[in-house]
Amino acid sequence: MKILLVVCDGLGDRPIKELNYKTPLAAAEKPNLEKLSLIGVKGIMDTVAPGVRPGSAPAHLAIFGYDPEKYYTGRGVFEALGLGLELKEGDIVFRFNFATVDDKMVVVDRRAGRISERTVELAKALNDISIQGVELVFKEAVEHRGVLIMRGEGLSWKVSDTDPGKTGLRVGKCKPLDSSPEALKTASLVDMVVEESYKILKDHWVNRDRIKQGVPPANVVLPRGASILTKVEGFKERYKLKASCVAGGTLYKGVAKFAGMNVLNVAGATGTYETNYKAKVEASLKALKETDFVFLHFKQADLAGEDGDYKRKIEVIQRIDEALKPLTVLDDTLIVVTADHSTPCSIKTHSADPVPVMICGEEVRRDCIEGFDEVKAAKGGLNRIRGLDLIRILLDIVNLAEKYGA
Amino acid sequence: MKILLVVCDGLGDRPIKELNYKTPLAAAEKPNLEKLSLIGVKGIMDTVAPGVRPGSAPAHLAIFGYDPEKYYTGRGVFEALGLGLELKEGDIVFRFNFATVDDKMVVVDRRAGRISERTVELAKALNDISIQGVELVFKEAVEHRGVLIMRGEGLSWKVSDTDPGKTGLRVGKCKPLDSSPEALKTASLVDMVVEESYKILKDHWVNRDRIKQGVPPANVVLPRGASILTKVEGFKERYKLKASCVAGGTLYKGVAKFAGMNVLNVAGATGTYETNYKAKVEASLKALKETDFVFLHFKQADLAGEDGDYKRKIEVIQRIDEALKPLTVLDDTLIVVTADHSTPCSIKTHSADPVPVMICGEEVRRDCIEGFDEVKAAKGGLNRIRGLDLIRILLDIVNLAEKYGA
Repeated sequence: MKILLVVCDGLGDRPIKELNYKTPLAAAEKPNLEKLSLIGVKGIMDTVAPGVRPGSAPAHLAIFGYDPEKYYTGRGVFEALGLGLELKEGDIVFRFNFATVDDKMVVVDRRAGRISERTVELAKALNDISIQGVELVFKEAVEHRGVLIMRGEGLSWKVSDTDPGKTGLRVGKCKPLDSSPEALKTASLVDMVVEESYKILKDHWVNRDRIKQGVPPANVVLPRGASILTKVEGFKERYKLKASCVAGGTLYKGVAKFAGMNVLNVAGATGTYETNYKAKVEASLKALKETDFVFLHFKQADLAGEDGDYKRKIEVIQRIDEALKPLTVLDDTLIVVTADHSTPCSIKTHSADPVPVMICGEEVRRDCIEGFDEVKAAKGGLNRIRGLDLIRILLDIVNLAEKYGA
Repeated sequence: MKILLVVCDGLGDRPIKELNYKTPLAAAEKPNLEKLSLIGVKGIMDTVAPGVRPGSAPAHLAIFGYDPEKYYTGRGVFEALGLGLELKEGDIVFRFNFATVDDKMVVVDRRAGRISERTVELAKALNDISIQGVELVFKEAVEHRGVLIMRGEGLSWKVSDTDPGKTGLRVGKCKPLDSSPEALKTASLVDMVVEESYKILKDHWVNRDRIKQGVPPANVVLPRGASILTKVEGFKERYKLKASCVAGGTLYKGVAKFAGMNVLNVAGATGTYETNYKAKVEASLKALKETDFVFLHFKQADLAGEDGDYKRKIEVIQRIDEALKPLTVLDDTLIVVTADHSTPCSIKTHSADPVPVMICGEEVRRDCIEGFDEVKAAKGGLNRIRGLDLIRILLDIVNLAEKYGA
């Protein structure tokens, strides 16, 4: 039996007065999720732990069965993997912003005017920075963002950020966060990187051009969120599952890559409101033919939650539901629908409210709860589980769980 | 948003045949709790862990988010704090009984005839005991009880009780419970305290008077339940919540004090059947204006449970319900109603039966369970949580939870 795990990012919500205290999921028309619910068991899930408000990366790690306490040091590693960079065990990975500083290294714009073009040229130039004993890789990401890999002996991820957090302040010195010689060394390397980046970027043609156009030059990089790649067994070794990922956002691709999944590139899968929902489902169904496990990620409910737009949240849930129609006639596949965290429209950010989860298939105990929303799920046969439980429960249903004792 | 946590001590119960197998909570008329239930999410809670029958102190610690495994060494610390004594980190605190011994130190009455008067004089006299290198503070409590603080270098709480447990036996020698020099030293200090207490008390005028009246003299103290004050962050530092406590009983005030709450003195709040329910609710509502979190404790359901009196338990629940009426119209306040443990009338003591818990407010997912009792709560949207989860869940609902990762 195969497994299709559909994660609707930020799906969970709180009651909305205008919806007569229903949540967007409860208010949405969702005939396909409802049809699936008839052959499913439902529950609520604390992806990290009850009352813990998780970021997306630790939440996905937990859902994939990787304890975030052990494997999550920061988002950089997953962003880098999601951008397609190859990482080695022990690599220190930073996220960075392209920013604008004056000649006294005072920050004028923390995002270099939200630069969104030709950062590929800037990153290419930065890759000329040479510091003895350490290998550096710069890679641009969305808009003013990028990642920096630092590779070498005796490095640590226990170092502070350099972004002073607001304009008008000098770029911060990177500080070691523990007393190890590794942290001390890494902090001083980060300071050198910042300095060297300014030397290279200040007269780069892209920036001369930007100044001419009257927009802030991207003349420095500000590393933050140091993280380390820990060695880990992928889905294949860990669970005997050949796994694929269909996602738009870099972070989700990165976590999937970390877990050893084959990350598919699907035309139109963008991680934005404009994503091609149906293309993603089609790609997932195709991938299921060749792999045992497919992780299908939809970002849009989270975007609507962060926008505080419950109407849009209902709309994207309905579009996801529509796209999921082919799942209602699948044979020999366990369908799982859940979220990584709640993003209530009322607070426009992640909350710890447990997420609904539904596991559907012939072998699943039907709990006689019709429909799928936060309140109905809480009455379901799974009761309240934790993120780390999910993959083990799925492995058991497809009869891949190892026996504990005799 | 503010938080009002109402703990009805010993509220949970087991089915009572005479109530057609309902619990006292289910049988009680409780229109206000029922009204609150309409805007709430319910569940059951194991304050310490499933099947663990908790004392009131560890149960309250857990509900406040302080792991009893880490912070509970004995009840003495909390009794002392509840009596208004100032403690320092590392203080060893005993509870003690005033008892009666003969001149061979054989126990004649373990409670000195349940002495209830003039123990303040006896404690005052005991404070003259001087043992080199250690500071001693004796303080009388209810009836024959008191607390003893032992303060100094190199002390340990790992020592045995001295009360032999029945009359006709000599006062026990205090034994070290581990092989540390600190435990050895403390045990011998306790023996000295017992000896010195006899020297001071045997001819005290209060006791000469008692003998004259034909009641047993309180001529010795028997320390027990050694505990240590561990350093802890209060609600303000830990949760960014300014917190107050409205309680009658010493122990509950003590746990609140331990957690950094401001313990209010409310006229008529006694921790007995004669408490002034309404005055306590009024004081709580007043406190809510100045603080973010109020812990309101009612002791009476526990008393009725320990008396095995289900009719009285129903009656006190109804009185609590009546007093809680003003809560049904509160805005911008999260109302939480729960218990620290069950005290079934059938067994007249604490049990591990999970307690019902209800969290009510605009931002809470309404679980469509109307009413509030052990059985209905178990069908609610919280499912089954642990005591340690509660405060984190509440912090999340009021948007004070820190994000875990990104």
